Amino acid sequence: MASVEAIDLFLLQVPDFDPDRDPVKDTLLVRVRAAAHEGWGECEAAPLVSLAAFVTPESHSTSQPVAASVIGQKLDDPADIAAITRSVATKSMNVLQAPHVFSGVEMALWDLLGKMHQEPAYRLLGYREAFPKVPYVVMPFASTPQETFRRMEQIRASGFHAVKTGWNGFGSGNLLADRAQLAAAREGLGKDARLFLDAARVWGTDVSAATRYQPLLEEFSVEWVEEPFIPTALDAYADLARKHGRDHVAAGENANSVAHARQLLDIGGIGIIQIDCGRVGGIGAAAEIARFADEGGAVYLNHTYTSHLALSASLSAYAGLERHSLCEYPSDRTSLSWAICADHLEIGPGGMIVSPEAPGLGIAMNLDGVEDRVVDLEIRFSDRILYRTPCLRT
Amino acid sequence: MASVEAIDLFLLQVPDFDPDRDPVKDTLLVRVRAAAHEGWGECEAAPLVSLAAFVTPESHSTSQPVAASVIGQKLDDPADIAAITRSVATKSMNVLQAPHVFSGVEMALWDLLGKMHQEPAYRLLGYREAFPKVPYVVMPFASTPQETFRRMEQIRASGFHAVKTGWNGFGSGNLLADRAQLAAAREGLGKDARLFLDAARVWGTDVSAATRYQPLLEEFSVEWVEEPFIPTALDAYADLARKHGRDHVAAGENANSVAHARQLLDIGGIGIIQIDCGRVGGIGAAAEIARFADEGGAVYLNHTYTSHLALSASLSAYAGLERHSLCEYPSDRTSLSWAICADHLEIGPGGMIVSPEAPGLGIAMNLDGVEDRVVDLEIRFSDRILYRTPCLRT
Repeated sequence: MASVEAIDLFLLQVPDFDPDRDPVKDTLLVRVRAAAHEGWGECEAAPLVSLAAFVTPESHSTSQPVAASVIGQKLDDPADIAAITRSVATKSMNVLQAPHVFSGVEMALWDLLGKMHQEPAYRLLGYREAFPKVPYVVMPFASTPQETFRRMEQIRASGFHAVKTGWNGFGSGNLLADRAQLAAAREGLGKDARLFLDAARVWGTDVSAATRYQPLLEEFSVEWVEEPFIPTALDAYADLARKHGRDHVAAGENANSVAHARQLLDIGGIGIIQIDCGRVGGIGAAAEIARFADEGGAVYLNHTYTSHLALSASLSAYAGLERHSLCEYPSDRTSLSWAICADHLEIGPGGMIVSPEAPGLGIAMNLDGVEDRVVDLEIRFSDRILYRTPCLRT
Repeated sequence: MASVEAIDLFLLQVPDFDPDRDPVKDTLLVRVRAAAHEGWGECEAAPLVSLAAFVTPESHSTSQPVAASVIGQKLDDPADIAAITRSVATKSMNVLQAPHVFSGVEMALWDLLGKMHQEPAYRLLGYREAFPKVPYVVMPFASTPQETFRRMEQIRASGFHAVKTGWNGFGSGNLLADRAQLAAAREGLGKDARLFLDAARVWGTDVSAATRYQPLLEEFSVEWVEEPFIPTALDAYADLARKHGRDHVAAGENANSVAHARQLLDIGGIGIIQIDCGRVGGIGAAAEIARFADEGGAVYLNHTYTSHLALSASLSAYAGLERHSLCEYPSDRTSLSWAICADHLEIGPGGMIVSPEAPGLGIAMNLDGVEDRVVDLEIRFSDRILYRTPCLRT
């Protein structure tokens, strides 16, 4: 019988961060050890706050640190991860940040369990087979249509057939300028490429503003619009989905619970749910949402702009669901996210990617390569050191 | 023109905490300064995590520290607080803990603004008059019905006519034992006292388990049951509200946004919404929910087990709504929560309490009395000190 022996958190940050150069500023890695094995996970965004949620002293019975539900717990099979997940939901119910840090911890538990069983995580999750997925890359509009065209041409040349674009003021109401950007993107990519738009909540809760863009999206065969509205605007989502068909409305990256994702599907009526494994509560939560979406005829896919460790974790959640064939693919080789992994999910035959067959999440870490980016951090609480950056190599 | 000059956070903890003696273990106080005035606020639960959400370095554009939306901002009238609130919702959207720490900050902003204008906070919120409320105290079932009877007798003798009870295993299925507890509570309080039950999510998502208790609740005239289910079980809430009438189903203390509270009312169909000002996002968010509940014919009341500063903040959110006449009243004079305030909302004529008429939240702090409970805390991030406990008196 194995149990969780140690959990170490590492906050990494890009030195001399430059927003024009660096796609990612920081990250929080989680290392879990048990029975002479090691598992890794990654939490998306706000790493210091997540770290605090792991080490905080207990405030009251439902405001306990996430650590209290994990360290020392039995870890022999998937049911043990489910039990730990339930414990966090109860003991840390009133620590709002808890799902965020637990996401990385839970990933690491699956990675570890897979290594113990010598099985890929997706198989421990109950999938017999991992189906290939179509990767799409994320490429924002450039400052000019000419530059957008050039970027999209490059993407096409590098072998991708699907792109999500958006931002840089798109959607603010200048339909002529926005049309020029979309036209440039479509032209650069070619007619047969798949194109998606991330509206990044630009229309707030305003359905009519979103509707004004519908002809443009149809003209350039944009398959779906992501986050037209703020995540809580369920009525606006429902309205847009009714008007334009739910298969054209996507959201979900901000979901931090299964319940939240289900609401987007059930009440918001969206047809495409995009889940970030590093935020929603981990792989188990993501898999539950994937099955729920599948049963309801919606499409599930991942949201990932972190590492290929997180990408592998994300894939494992819906690896065995053949109908759900799209995958958001972090492709920036200059990023901190790329650097932290030694292995990457490379594009395979037919331009597809597939979950690794290696045990756990199947991704080796590149600790030597990122050691200098680990932030030396300390939280002192009266005369106790609650957290001090541990050693990455021991 | 005034602007927010400084915000200081203080984590207080009971030394040698004893769960059998101390009702509260810790708290997070917020001090805001502008234009030679000072305002105070209090965040409910998990103080270290909330503190981290205030000082964390920016992770990306929607993962900014709460401080980034407040410090240096204009503060002349209520619209400025609304603007700061919108900024936090955007810039800190992906810091899950943000609403929790902002709740205390926002309270302090109203306190400060009231002092600047020499007006009580409730009037700045648009209420002309503060209507008295019926305070109820929270008293759990004791380990025996005899002791429960004795506790309730004491409460009655001290002048209260309304009590919320629960916990200590109540609701787990031993109907005979639970009946004895409820009978003892009712007998100790007297027939004319108002009695409420906090089920503390004991029935999870199980509507039939909750329904089994219905005859007991009717027998002892329990007006409503609070949190029969976990906060996300909207379907279970809706089912129970349909079966037994929405006026008998209460929830809301876990709401951390206006959207969440509206869902409990709209989808969960509950008739009584209980909002914690120290968690939901502050007084403005609470007031918005109160008005929404009022328009929909539901009952609004506060959830407060922190200080009378937080109680005053909570009252200001619905002070002018006469129909909403209940108020949860922290009454334990031995607690840290009691000690941090010099002023308290005392029970007035007819056993009622009312919002203070003094400027702001109208509660003076008792800094001398709690100075020794301020935790000496430091967060070091590489060579930067992100947080070090400031001085309480300067």
